[in-house]
Amino acid sequence: MSIKQPPWKPDLRCTEEPVLRIYNSLTKSKTEFIPRNGRIVKWYNCGPTVYDASHMGHARNYVTQDILRRIVSDYFGYDVHFVMNVTDIDDKIILRARQKYLFERFRDQVASLSADLIDRVSAAWKAHVLNRVSRALPDDVKAREGDENASWLRIEQFIEDKDRKAECLKRDEKFDMHLRAALQTLSALSIAREKLSSSECDREFALQLVDESRDILSASLDEELKHTVTDPSIFRALAAYWENQFFRDMDRLRVRRPDILTRVTEYVPEIVDFVKRIIENGYGYTHGGSVYFDTLAFDSSGKHVYAKLEPWSKGNRELLAEGEGALSGSSGKRSPADFALWKASKAGEPSWPSPWGSGRPGWHIECSVMASAIFGDNMDIHSGGIDLAFPHHDNEIAQSEAYHGCESWVNYFIHTGHLHIEGLKMSKSLKNFITIDEILRRYTPRQLRLAFLSQLWNAKVDFSESLMTGEVRTIENNFNNFFATVKAIVLTNNGQSDGYHHYEDPERELMNELYQSKLSFRAALCDSFNTPEALKVLRDLVSRTNIYINSRGKLLNVGVVEQSARWVGQMLHMFGLGEGYEPDLGWGTEQNKNGGANREEVLMPYLRVLSSFRDGVRRLAIAKTEDAPKQILKLCDQLRDDDLVPLGVALDDQEDGKALVKLVPPAELIKTRDEKRQKLEAQALRKAAAAEEQRQKRLAKLEKGRTPPEELFRPPNVPEGSYSQWNEIGLPTADGSGEKLSKSQEKKLQKLWNDQKKLHEEYLAWQQQQH
Amino acid sequence: MSIKQPPWKPDLRCTEEPVLRIYNSLTKSKTEFIPRNGRIVKWYNCGPTVYDASHMGHARNYVTQDILRRIVSDYFGYDVHFVMNVTDIDDKIILRARQKYLFERFRDQVASLSADLIDRVSAAWKAHVLNRVSRALPDDVKAREGDENASWLRIEQFIEDKDRKAECLKRDEKFDMHLRAALQTLSALSIAREKLSSSECDREFALQLVDESRDILSASLDEELKHTVTDPSIFRALAAYWENQFFRDMDRLRVRRPDILTRVTEYVPEIVDFVKRIIENGYGYTHGGSVYFDTLAFDSSGKHVYAKLEPWSKGNRELLAEGEGALSGSSGKRSPADFALWKASKAGEPSWPSPWGSGRPGWHIECSVMASAIFGDNMDIHSGGIDLAFPHHDNEIAQSEAYHGCESWVNYFIHTGHLHIEGLKMSKSLKNFITIDEILRRYTPRQLRLAFLSQLWNAKVDFSESLMTGEVRTIENNFNNFFATVKAIVLTNNGQSDGYHHYEDPERELMNELYQSKLSFRAALCDSFNTPEALKVLRDLVSRTNIYINSRGKLLNVGVVEQSARWVGQMLHMFGLGEGYEPDLGWGTEQNKNGGANREEVLMPYLRVLSSFRDGVRRLAIAKTEDAPKQILKLCDQLRDDDLVPLGVALDDQEDGKALVKLVPPAELIKTRDEKRQKLEAQALRKAAAAEEQRQKRLAKLEKGRTPPEELFRPPNVPEGSYSQWNEIGLPTADGSGEKLSKSQEKKLQKLWNDQKKLHEEYLAWQQQQH
Repeated sequence: MSIKQPPWKPDLRCTEEPVLRIYNSLTKSKTEFIPRNGRIVKWYNCGPTVYDASHMGHARNYVTQDILRRIVSDYFGYDVHFVMNVTDIDDKIILRARQKYLFERFRDQVASLSADLIDRVSAAWKAHVLNRVSRALPDDVKAREGDENASWLRIEQFIEDKDRKAECLKRDEKFDMHLRAALQTLSALSIAREKLSSSECDREFALQLVDESRDILSASLDEELKHTVTDPSIFRALAAYWENQFFRDMDRLRVRRPDILTRVTEYVPEIVDFVKRIIENGYGYTHGGSVYFDTLAFDSSGKHVYAKLEPWSKGNRELLAEGEGALSGSSGKRSPADFALWKASKAGEPSWPSPWGSGRPGWHIECSVMASAIFGDNMDIHSGGIDLAFPHHDNEIAQSEAYHGCESWVNYFIHTGHLHIEGLKMSKSLKNFITIDEILRRYTPRQLRLAFLSQLWNAKVDFSESLMTGEVRTIENNFNNFFATVKAIVLTNNGQSDGYHHYEDPERELMNELYQSKLSFRAALCDSFNTPEALKVLRDLVSRTNIYINSRGKLLNVGVVEQSARWVGQMLHMFGLGEGYEPDLGWGTEQNKNGGANREEVLMPYLRVLSSFRDGVRRLAIAKTEDAPKQILKLCDQLRDDDLVPLGVALDDQEDGKALVKLVPPAELIKTRDEKRQKLEAQALRKAAAAEEQRQKRLAKLEKGRTPPEELFRPPNVPEGSYSQWNEIGLPTADGSGEKLSKSQEKKLQKLWNDQKKLHEEYLAWQQQQH
Repeated sequence: MSIKQPPWKPDLRCTEEPVLRIYNSLTKSKTEFIPRNGRIVKWYNCGPTVYDASHMGHARNYVTQDILRRIVSDYFGYDVHFVMNVTDIDDKIILRARQKYLFERFRDQVASLSADLIDRVSAAWKAHVLNRVSRALPDDVKAREGDENASWLRIEQFIEDKDRKAECLKRDEKFDMHLRAALQTLSALSIAREKLSSSECDREFALQLVDESRDILSASLDEELKHTVTDPSIFRALAAYWENQFFRDMDRLRVRRPDILTRVTEYVPEIVDFVKRIIENGYGYTHGGSVYFDTLAFDSSGKHVYAKLEPWSKGNRELLAEGEGALSGSSGKRSPADFALWKASKAGEPSWPSPWGSGRPGWHIECSVMASAIFGDNMDIHSGGIDLAFPHHDNEIAQSEAYHGCESWVNYFIHTGHLHIEGLKMSKSLKNFITIDEILRRYTPRQLRLAFLSQLWNAKVDFSESLMTGEVRTIENNFNNFFATVKAIVLTNNGQSDGYHHYEDPERELMNELYQSKLSFRAALCDSFNTPEALKVLRDLVSRTNIYINSRGKLLNVGVVEQSARWVGQMLHMFGLGEGYEPDLGWGTEQNKNGGANREEVLMPYLRVLSSFRDGVRRLAIAKTEDAPKQILKLCDQLRDDDLVPLGVALDDQEDGKALVKLVPPAELIKTRDEKRQKLEAQALRKAAAAEEQRQKRLAKLEKGRTPPEELFRPPNVPEGSYSQWNEIGLPTADGSGEKLSKSQEKKLQKLWNDQKKLHEEYLAWQQQQH
């Protein structure tokens, strides 16, 4: 081949491909996203602490993370490795599990209502008033030990003043809750005392008192007996229960499960090793069986900086205390910023062996250890709620750098924003606390996701009734109407050409809109996952396409419209808004998982069989003919053997008259049925053949009996000349030559005569019958 | 915030992201793929000429294109705009459509077997032997006009020599086909002559002759009558039929439909304009109503080069003739390399108006025009089968450059490789021609796709029985077994933790394998879509994971195994190998579209209702109690109103006893049913109230009749002293003061007495009834 191709001169790129930039908490700015290894993205996400039902805060955080994860993997095509932990060792878990266990044990032992029981509850009530209710009260109102009843009267008087009560709530946000518990128990005690005085001591009344006083009693039992609770399975059971509930909720919200899930309880030996190395590296010290992280040593090492995410929060005592947990002591720290890596175990806590005595991991250490176990000394993305930035994530970074001796454990730290409900922080005391269970009774998962998509992932979201019933509903309806319109257009045209082409200026314009939308959509997502902007691009394209549809009339180009709708549907799917199976066009139908048309397709053949069987039965029942029952039974058999078999339904009739229903491949059923039929037919054939044989025998016998015994020994029944003389009943007396028969001969003939007489009688009787 | 964050020092990239390079026919090498506008990819694919059933060559080309398209859009995340044309003006379409039309018209007019008909067929046979069979014969054997029968004897003698016959086949690959047609018609003629001589002239025998001679007759009719065929719908109908068949086949092969489909018949005015501009630009000239492209002018323009793809083929007459079409004349060309842009219409061809007289588009022009209409003067990718590279694609490029005045109409030209069957080129004469219909009876779409994936897209594929039953079957089984194993493991564990973590060296190794596989997979696809290598990466990961599973035993980490399987499944899906709905794990099950479990879930509630209804009916029919029919009707109503309503099934009983079945949302049905019930209940209540009122009235009347008329005017029925004298029937004759009553008074009382008598009689009758 001596002739060469001319040089390749491609038409050069005229628009640069936009690059993905992510708002990075480590810089508080948008930085270009460059993964460390090709397109693999190592991503660790802080998971839930599992001790209670998931709420809207969880929904906000995990749905948003799920959206980001889908964009990175499904839109940008990165190979994402998504790891999440479950915190199953935690003060709240320990307390809840222990109290639950102690309360339930106590309750099980209650036999009847007694003065002892009332005293026990009353004592708990007094302690509750003294310790919990009093805490937020002004000194002059505080309860006094030994005089609780008088104190209570004072308290009741005091809380009638709403302003003063509100002041207490400021001092202790749980004041209201404690007060309510106190009132509830007080009322239960009063009822119990009345019952007892009228000698109504049934267990039922005792349990009423115990159950009504659950909160107060649990706390009291815990105070008294917590040291008796040591079995780790008690704690693990509670965590496992709430972990399951968490994932059930996430599934309902269509949050993808993590690629790898880690649990703290399963990583304790690794945690111990991790802490040992931190001490070895000079960044940890022990005190009283606990191990603390030395923030000063770390910060002054020259290599590391403590609190990279929020250096301004370094001294924030309130945040620090929250991080350390209410149940843990913090004495013995070299600096107030130091935090526990390992906590000496206290009474009533699960504990694990360690070089520093038995204890349990501090809160922050788990994420450092588990993420390191899987990703090593660096990951591309670490994510979590903004609440966790300090101290949790800053401590995590410090621990991991201290362990690995590296300067950069996380390249991109991303934090999802706060959630407010109707403008206020969500809290149980504000009564705006909403569980996922509750919210899903009001809105669909798609609506919730749309609400989050319509806000920036790292902004504060104000979740409000008006957002849901206004903007979100509007967006949803717009998309629904659009897809319905396009589907109708596509169906009407059904891929058939009308022989004309419709690709002129309006089509070129719409196609350009589509290109432009794709570019803008990508630009929006490259701009730190700007989903509200991306959603707007889709909505604008929907509007433009609607305008095109309305203005173009019969000249409409179905292909272009379909293409626009198909892309919008794909992008909504990519965001996790698609329902059920990948639809041909659109984003599926909420609620009906099987898809309308498909469900109908599956069901209809069966329903038709059901209906026509009923028709037949009704007809017979209305006609009331005599053989109706027999006919109905025949229909029942036909239904089983003829109608349902090709549909793959086996009805197995049982002795009790209740048939079993099974789905079996039709081919199998047909085979079984036909084999059964053949067997029955073969049986019937054999029976018929046997009967026929019998009949033939009988006929032959009857035929034989046709001759009267008198004629038996005369021609033509015997050869001419066999005998020459007969007596009056036709018995031969002499043979053909005239010689008299011998006695034995006569006897033999007599017997034959007798037999024939019988046969002839039978023949006559049969003949009689025939007429 | 005076405290600042420390500078961000991300751990830098250690592996570069590989870039996509594509084997580009314009350079015959792999060139980096850079789209012109962001990540939008404008892609034009040469579609089918629709005149016959699609075959394995189509499967190879379109499945391979589909794989490339899926990789570019679903794996690399480009916004692909995929346009494909359908060639519905073409010599073969015209010939087939015309012959089909003429033959069918002729056949419809045949009334009976006649000497005329036999002569007609015989003449066609002679022409066939003279023109078609003779063509490949040596001169001494060729048929001679006017002496066809003698010629035929010579031919028959000649073809007995197999070697000489084979030589003919070399000269004309259709020789065998023509010979077979001749023999078939000859035999049909002989039968027809016999029939006629025995006066069997039924239409049936005539049609036998016509049908057996179809090929020969069609050609003969066409020769004679083609000028009479002018209705364009005749040609369009054939194309539309085969276009539908083509897409039906593509759907079965799971080839995605193009985003935009263009048809030549719909672009003729644009084609005329396009050709006009080429002439204006100096690259086209007219001759005898046709327009030709001036390759010399183009090549010497300084700006353009003709035949960029295959400059060495420039003078290849054979390829050129094929491009120009057998039916088109090529006289009047300035250079043999020139080609028709517009062809003057000949008899029996569809034609469109143009400045050069009525005619039709040349073959190459359509793609230039339609791609330009949608993409303008540049596109990123143009694809097609390698057969099309020269002259079709080179001419396309030349035309478009000549029109747009651009130097680079296509940036990346990609050609799918040839297909051979068992080592030989597929052709009808070699009898290794396989339609898609046929192949899908032997293999599943997934197996075919695996076969193509296991070869390079631009290499020659040798499709063989051994490939399918060997390698492909092995690959498929490996994946199937792997997914089955992993599913079983996942199911057994069911997401529950055993309380231990299993993330040690073996897990770390497997996880690294997974990372490495993802990198290698991407590298393979970046290397010009090297799917055999990518498939190998997946298969190797499956082996490694299997080894891990087998060696790790009870310590197996389900999460890691699941992650590996999930990724493999996703990648197989990406290649278009997934069946039906997006599965949770794996690649779905061939054949069962609804998924076993799902179908069961949908159906079971309905089947249970059906079965228990039948149970009830049977029970009643067996019991044969007197009120069985009534009870059965009650069951029928219950089925409709109570059992099916919550399931969303409406049974509407009709007068003819055949109920209509409808699927309606349950809520709607419940509402309707309850409203109906309430209405009926209200009606019943009203009726009952009215009846009660009637009853009360009647009772009052009866009560009034309790008094005999004789007693009516005596106390206590009248106040004491109202009257003083009565006659024998108790009618008063004097008032309380003894004064005689007036006539009018007497008359009035008599009337009252008569009324009472009637009432009393009624009362007595009623009383009688009561006993």
